[in-house]
Amino acid sequence: MTQTVERRLTPKGEATRTRILDAAIDLIAAHGVSGTSTEQVRQAAGVSGSQLYHYFATKRALISAVITRQADAGPCAPPLGALDSLEALQAWADAAVERQQVTGGRCDLSTLAAELSTGDPSSRGEIREGYERWRAVLQAGLRAMRDRGELRPDADLDELALALLTALQGGSLLARTLGSAEPMRASMHAALAYVRSHATPAAL
Amino acid sequence: MTQTVERRLTPKGEATRTRILDAAIDLIAAHGVSGTSTEQVRQAAGVSGSQLYHYFATKRALISAVITRQADAGPCAPPLGALDSLEALQAWADAAVERQQVTGGRCDLSTLAAELSTGDPSSRGEIREGYERWRAVLQAGLRAMRDRGELRPDADLDELALALLTALQGGSLLARTLGSAEPMRASMHAALAYVRSHATPAAL
Repeated sequence: MTQTVERRLTPKGEATRTRILDAAIDLIAAHGVSGTSTEQVRQAAGVSGSQLYHYFATKRALISAVITRQADAGPCAPPLGALDSLEALQAWADAAVERQQVTGGRCDLSTLAAELSTGDPSSRGEIREGYERWRAVLQAGLRAMRDRGELRPDADLDELALALLTALQGGSLLARTLGSAEPMRASMHAALAYVRSHATPAAL
Repeated sequence: MTQTVERRLTPKGEATRTRILDAAIDLIAAHGVSGTSTEQVRQAAGVSGSQLYHYFATKRALISAVITRQADAGPCAPPLGALDSLEALQAWADAAVERQQVTGGRCDLSTLAAELSTGDPSSRGEIREGYERWRAVLQAGLRAMRDRGELRPDADLDELALALLTALQGGSLLARTLGSAEPMRASMHAALAYVRSHATPAAL
């Protein structure tokens, strides 16, 4: 449904919708979902009430779009189809640490997940879908590595994908709370070392 | 200050305070901090408004006590001073996975951290203190292992402690969102393997 609406937007309409979403993401990063009102979003985006209503009739619709955006292209979302080598995984991990240092942890689904995982079931479902997509990207990359003989045949790809995803999200959560990128650095370092421990000698 | 108040409580008073805290923890696990009102806590605990006010004059005071309780003795808090061997760490990891299976993820500071890390600075400070305490427990255990020659002299204890903590919190967050204990199992397995990769041959 969202896609149908987006397809119909003029370039100007799309720019307005993007401006509203950007404002919502900034405010949620600073104050959480429950601490962000649509009126604050409206003011920050510099749009009228009727414009906001046109693109997002309810706060629920706005939050849904924020979740989709963060899952699709959030700062820490895995690049689609590219995480299929130890080098690519290392670059992804390095980028996650760097973004944590630069942005102080606006990274992503983890804030939304934690705040909304106890709330509205449909938000939780959308966040779950986002995570499942990330997990699938990681699994596909690891499978390609195993197929090329870079990971051992007995490597548990489901477990490796989850180890990478939990490291990213746990690192993000702790880094934000402790106000330091060190937790992200440690979690990604440990997860990458775990993946490497399943590599064949040829891949190292 | 909280301790002073607790010290003065009669056994009956302490039981009432505990009942209120238990009710708050249950409600927050189900609906989040922002989705839980003091009136709901009052009803669930079966106390009067004046009783609730006597123990927790504000919602802020109640949340503060919930954070302290979860940090001190939350289901996933490391047992004080006991995580000083590979066996003890493994038992802690196994217990975290089992609790995730049994309770479906009421485990802990991660819900509070994620919801409150974007909100009130004093709550964030209390959660940070809780994490710092857990980190110190893990570091002390790892240091004891290194001193006994079970971890290599060059093992980075800060990094290992953070790897264990982020695994616990990332595992908890993903497990709760995906509705499965598998993320916790994968994250703890990977983190323990990382610690083991720093063990001396004698310890394995």
